[in-house]
Amino acid sequence: MENNKKTRKSAEIYPSTQVSPAVIRRLPRYYRYLRELIRNGESRISSGELSKMMQVTASQIRQDLNCFGGFGQQGYGYNVNYLFTKISEILGVGEGYRGIIVGAGNLGKALVRNRMFERRGVDIVAMFDIDKNVIGKEYGGAKVLDMSELKKFCDQTSVDIAVLTLPKSVADETIPLLEDAGIRGIWNFTGKELKCSDETVCEDVYLGDSLMTLCYELRTRGNLSKDDD
Amino acid sequence: MENNKKTRKSAEIYPSTQVSPAVIRRLPRYYRYLRELIRNGESRISSGELSKMMQVTASQIRQDLNCFGGFGQQGYGYNVNYLFTKISEILGVGEGYRGIIVGAGNLGKALVRNRMFERRGVDIVAMFDIDKNVIGKEYGGAKVLDMSELKKFCDQTSVDIAVLTLPKSVADETIPLLEDAGIRGIWNFTGKELKCSDETVCEDVYLGDSLMTLCYELRTRGNLSKDDD
Repeated sequence: MENNKKTRKSAEIYPSTQVSPAVIRRLPRYYRYLRELIRNGESRISSGELSKMMQVTASQIRQDLNCFGGFGQQGYGYNVNYLFTKISEILGVGEGYRGIIVGAGNLGKALVRNRMFERRGVDIVAMFDIDKNVIGKEYGGAKVLDMSELKKFCDQTSVDIAVLTLPKSVADETIPLLEDAGIRGIWNFTGKELKCSDETVCEDVYLGDSLMTLCYELRTRGNLSKDDD
Repeated sequence: MENNKKTRKSAEIYPSTQVSPAVIRRLPRYYRYLRELIRNGESRISSGELSKMMQVTASQIRQDLNCFGGFGQQGYGYNVNYLFTKISEILGVGEGYRGIIVGAGNLGKALVRNRMFERRGVDIVAMFDIDKNVIGKEYGGAKVLDMSELKKFCDQTSVDIAVLTLPKSVADETIPLLEDAGIRGIWNFTGKELKCSDETVCEDVYLGDSLMTLCYELRTRGNLSKDDD
């Protein structure tokens, strides 16, 4: 993967008007479908075909992509490679972000080996923990360093993203350390809502909430089918 | 944890009218905050205090909880334990669901050890894989069985939920096996949209999408702060 580290060269693709969070949330899904199309050797697709595949209306697709200037041509459809590249740029894939994983427990170790970081252009450069039993070990190419070295490490190697996989009981006290080290993005797996400064971007993953939503759906559907009997 | 396995005793708490998915999605958050209050020894809370804590309007809170008949008393506020119990029931916590993890790779092994299952009343009874190197091993109290034994296992021990942590390339072919084994809930970590039957409930976790949303936010905020200079 080409590394455009810190070179914000593509200012022209920023939307001139505010794009709604709903559209932004949908873009990664386009990204996934387009990647699949590229893998299957498809070079163009009509909004109708894309619509059928993604099960959203063609008009929704046109609207979404028009937010960014639109990349389709009447009668030709979308150039898959071009659209994929543009969406990648919009999403910040290939910005060359550097990440660390804070908390080298089971989840941290599982995530560091996940190829999604590489695919999304995020380079995981180290892991941090306070447990002497894991400090010094290496997982998925990333070495576990002592939390006390965080600031020094980040002074030498600027870090954009911290993946928080530590226990929720120590989550709050960790935030100022990360912010002090110049980290601006936090990917939060602690299951706790964090108190970050306004400058920090925090994306939360609440696995427990997702599991409960599944249980709720199972339960209500189970009830419905019982009523159907 | 008390096990009410398969006893659907609490039909009276089902909402009589359709509750919007938006409200359902918010309930796990109430669940988290109420659990925290219980841990801190709080027995009651006003909608105003809850509102301040959760950073949503008191009117929103009243509206949300009214969908389920409302559990507050004028001038007294909410009984924290009662509300927590009710929301747990609504969400299906304590239904005694049984789960399996399909795919005993890094993520599967990390998840099986995660206490969220126990906390949400889901009992992970086994893991499944096709890799001879992990079959027979035990992680977090769950033994890894051969995928070929899935049907037989589920015939003996009814399973409600399959946590899919296998490679996306084999995700689609696994669905019919799960459905055939009577599994109705799928928690999908494969990063691929699955083709399930209408009877199956599928809850997707797209970690890659979440990571890209973070990158997008980082990138646009970075741009904004540059403009501010």
